[in-house]
Amino acid sequence: MHATLDGDAVRVDPPGRERFYDSRGYGRPDGNALDLAPVEAAHLLFRGDLESVDGMGFRAFLAATDCTLPFLVYKDLRDRGFYLSPAREGWADGADAPGTGAAGEASETDFVVFPRGKGPWDGAVEYRVRVLGERETLRAAALADADTLAVVDEESELTYLAVERPELTGESADDLPTGVSAALLADRAVLWDPPRDLYARTFYGQPLDGRDADGALQCSLVEAAYLAERGAIRVDAGREGVVERGRAVEGERFDRRLAVYRALRGAGVVPKTGFKFGADFRTYATVRSVEELGHSEHLVRVVARDHAFTPRDLALDVRLAHGVRKRMVFALADADGEVDWLSVGRLTP
Amino acid sequence: MHATLDGDAVRVDPPGRERFYDSRGYGRPDGNALDLAPVEAAHLLFRGDLESVDGMGFRAFLAATDCTLPFLVYKDLRDRGFYLSPAREGWADGADAPGTGAAGEASETDFVVFPRGKGPWDGAVEYRVRVLGERETLRAAALADADTLAVVDEESELTYLAVERPELTGESADDLPTGVSAALLADRAVLWDPPRDLYARTFYGQPLDGRDADGALQCSLVEAAYLAERGAIRVDAGREGVVERGRAVEGERFDRRLAVYRALRGAGVVPKTGFKFGADFRTYATVRSVEELGHSEHLVRVVARDHAFTPRDLALDVRLAHGVRKRMVFALADADGEVDWLSVGRLTP
Repeated sequence: MHATLDGDAVRVDPPGRERFYDSRGYGRPDGNALDLAPVEAAHLLFRGDLESVDGMGFRAFLAATDCTLPFLVYKDLRDRGFYLSPAREGWADGADAPGTGAAGEASETDFVVFPRGKGPWDGAVEYRVRVLGERETLRAAALADADTLAVVDEESELTYLAVERPELTGESADDLPTGVSAALLADRAVLWDPPRDLYARTFYGQPLDGRDADGALQCSLVEAAYLAERGAIRVDAGREGVVERGRAVEGERFDRRLAVYRALRGAGVVPKTGFKFGADFRTYATVRSVEELGHSEHLVRVVARDHAFTPRDLALDVRLAHGVRKRMVFALADADGEVDWLSVGRLTP
Repeated sequence: MHATLDGDAVRVDPPGRERFYDSRGYGRPDGNALDLAPVEAAHLLFRGDLESVDGMGFRAFLAATDCTLPFLVYKDLRDRGFYLSPAREGWADGADAPGTGAAGEASETDFVVFPRGKGPWDGAVEYRVRVLGERETLRAAALADADTLAVVDEESELTYLAVERPELTGESADDLPTGVSAALLADRAVLWDPPRDLYARTFYGQPLDGRDADGALQCSLVEAAYLAERGAIRVDAGREGVVERGRAVEGERFDRRLAVYRALRGAGVVPKTGFKFGADFRTYATVRSVEELGHSEHLVRVVARDHAFTPRDLALDVRLAHGVRKRMVFALADADGEVDWLSVGRLTP
């Protein structure tokens, strides 16, 4: 069958449509002819279904069109039994299916993947895949717009990540005392005589003596700043003094973490340090008492809105969270209090 | 008992020695009197064994001496049944015990911890502990000098990490072919007609078609650069062309990673990408054939010699490695080929 490279499309003469589109979902039909994206043509060349494009076999075509990364993802998804279309202006019909507003924005979606057994003619979409090389970075805003990431690592193995926008809500108790005296010590605050419930019921702080839950309570600066702004504790330096200490030890990151802490507590969720998991917080949705503490559900990493994610760091966080049966959540935060939540998890298409 | 703060030591009048040193290992005796480090005095005040120092009780003393972080670690180790001494010039007798050269270097060791049931008078050392706040960083050189890290997180929980200098050696096959043709494609190399053993026996590359181990092989740029310098593959751009491509996509980090790759292969160890674990490499000590591949033993992260570790990143790496039953190893590398290995793992004293 005659195929020619024309700009960034491969034109297949009739009966290209019948042979490759109607039954197998390649390309975009134009009468009985067919326009293929380079990656589709590469796949047909690789399989031997197309002999050559302008005289180029698979190897030469791959070198000429530089579509190695998308090819690896396209091939993998085909191998898994999916039909898929490159998401290019006006290409993927399925792109106009309900609830699929982001399609056609080539910069954000590379492939529109149809449900198994469906094709571009069915108007349903299973995944919108963005292809990412291991060494590319992804801005937080772009991650927020993503649905599925297909990361190609340096040895050409693929990792799929699903991006979601979770709601973090809970039903934890948060009745606070008023004006409990607290002292700033180094980068923490100590409440020498806290009301018992502050730790035992609402899970603020950590007893100075682990064996004595009724004794002095250490709070992190984030906890202390939040408790001070709620009027629950009284520090000589005031709420501002705590925040200043926080900024002194971790810069403006402190403001972002405080914004996230406040948003979580406001939603009935208890955030505690996620240090042992390399995260900012681990969270508990429903704390009634520390003695009956359940499993924490999320790991939260706080990032600035202009944060650039590297696929490797994403892989690390997601893998760790998976290993400890928690969901990895990124909190995109301004210092002024706005927080957006993104969860990222492993996906097997 | 009368105790006074004198500079940075607390002087306890006789019978201070008998009461606190002889049976419980606090302080440094001076005749029948005793000199305590502030953290030791704080612990005695906390326990109520000492009533006051210059009229200060525990709270006031902690605020005045600013030894909160070391106090938390000191207390935890005492609670775990250890005797320990602050490592200060001339303080810890145990510091002069055999094989304990680093003692007394206050900048690197905070506490010398004696084996359970032993004390400062026995001349044996179990751990040399460096106390680290969650937000402090640790230079690679300082990590290399460390024995045990006690990290105090923002909520005052402790994580102990053991630092070791592992040897990475293996017995993997590494017979290479000569002059196999390879093509550079984007940020990888493809060998269209590789000898079968290159993948199947020596585990280079990744088959382009996962189901066809005899077909084309994709290699990472690191693999390709190493194979080119060994003369195993021939690339149009030469070995230098591969290295240049590597530098173009990841800067001088590429040279460091290549140095580590070379060192591992040279030691009979097979490095493969550690991307899914957020690391540079996972390693196999003994590869005879890909079909009988065992479990990979190490995760290797390559860092520059002046890298500053943050405790949180350390915690993340160590936790992940532990979860997948591998040892976390940091490769401190120069671009010129020198590599030092450091492994970091969780420790329960």
